[in-house]
Amino acid sequence: MFANLQTEIADRYGIHFNDVALLEEALTQANYINEHPNYTGHDYQRLEFLGDAVMQQSTAVYLFKRYPDWDEGRLTELRIMMVQTRSFAALSRELHLDKYVQLGRGEELSGARMRDSLLEDLWEAFIGALYLDQGQQAVMDFLEQTLFAKVDSGFFQQFVDYKSKLQEFLQKNGAVKIVYETLDEVAEENNTQIFTASVSLNGDELARGTGHSIKEAEKAAARIAFEALQK
Amino acid sequence: MFANLQTEIADRYGIHFNDVALLEEALTQANYINEHPNYTGHDYQRLEFLGDAVMQQSTAVYLFKRYPDWDEGRLTELRIMMVQTRSFAALSRELHLDKYVQLGRGEELSGARMRDSLLEDLWEAFIGALYLDQGQQAVMDFLEQTLFAKVDSGFFQQFVDYKSKLQEFLQKNGAVKIVYETLDEVAEENNTQIFTASVSLNGDELARGTGHSIKEAEKAAARIAFEALQK
Repeated sequence: MFANLQTEIADRYGIHFNDVALLEEALTQANYINEHPNYTGHDYQRLEFLGDAVMQQSTAVYLFKRYPDWDEGRLTELRIMMVQTRSFAALSRELHLDKYVQLGRGEELSGARMRDSLLEDLWEAFIGALYLDQGQQAVMDFLEQTLFAKVDSGFFQQFVDYKSKLQEFLQKNGAVKIVYETLDEVAEENNTQIFTASVSLNGDELARGTGHSIKEAEKAAARIAFEALQK
Repeated sequence: MFANLQTEIADRYGIHFNDVALLEEALTQANYINEHPNYTGHDYQRLEFLGDAVMQQSTAVYLFKRYPDWDEGRLTELRIMMVQTRSFAALSRELHLDKYVQLGRGEELSGARMRDSLLEDLWEAFIGALYLDQGQQAVMDFLEQTLFAKVDSGFFQQFVDYKSKLQEFLQKNGAVKIVYETLDEVAEENNTQIFTASVSLNGDELARGTGHSIKEAEKAAARIAFEALQK
């Protein structure tokens, strides 16, 4: 089974993982071992301990070099978004770690395979295994293809609370009136809808945004307004 | 001034720091720059952001390899002690970073030069600078001579709350009566005293310890009792 993952990683990322036993350890949950008394391997927790720290440094080094003009507050803010549960869970799914993990029966029945907190652990354990098998530079190269690529694709914008950021920014010099309004709702062919929302400051429209829900449309409007105000 | 630090580091640790400007950045506080409008350098905060993460990974990698039989709970416990404020402040003082830091006047007057929280920042910033100047392996080699050497010397035992650990251990199976008693107090020549304390469980003495205060003697007794019970 883990030889399949090894092949998949080679095909998709050009990484030739040497030690399949390390891959297996990264994807084996403690209760699976408890339920298989003859199983001789280890669970993923030590690798998770290692991978958590490797992710912290790798991300910090990347951001430090990528954004030479950012202060530490801005660097920290983006780092927190990059190394959070939802981010690592999304990366785990892209790597199909949710398909490969060996779970205990109780975890399987309770749906752990789909749970972000487990998938976060698996990502960290996988990175720990990759670090041991291939070293620091290979981890950085792999992250360039996965996590770091998401910085440019705007993936982390979904985690930013732009409505709060806009409010903080506008209230810096005292009370203001910020109003969100839904302007339009268009039905699409595939049974979804597109909403358009505006955000206004003391009665003057700042920006409009669209999304598949009112909440998304308002968030898009807040983001556009916030970014325009930063220029 | 920073050339002196460069020489000191070469003499004491065999590290030939190339970029003195990086050393200076690691040891320059933001308010110093505010008060010197013609100063062209940066403050240490970006390097601190980087060094914090480098310390996390370096320590995790060291512990992972050093203790192949420890579970992640034990690894995490020791890591937390190693990367805490008091630990980094002690390392900063050994490196004389408190002598070299360029502070703002307000910080100088308020005694920041002796404050653990500032010294922690300086240690992280110095490690960030060392990482940029010399790379990961040089950081590991330097930590072997400083932080990691303290693991073997028992330095981190002072941070362990052995009285709490002993209590938790003894109370696992229900209520018990733990009593500390000061047995002896001997005056030494250099105007200090040596105390001896015992710890007993339900009236039976478990261990005795000594120290320069009653608190230290009790802590030593708790540590000796706790370690004996682990065997």
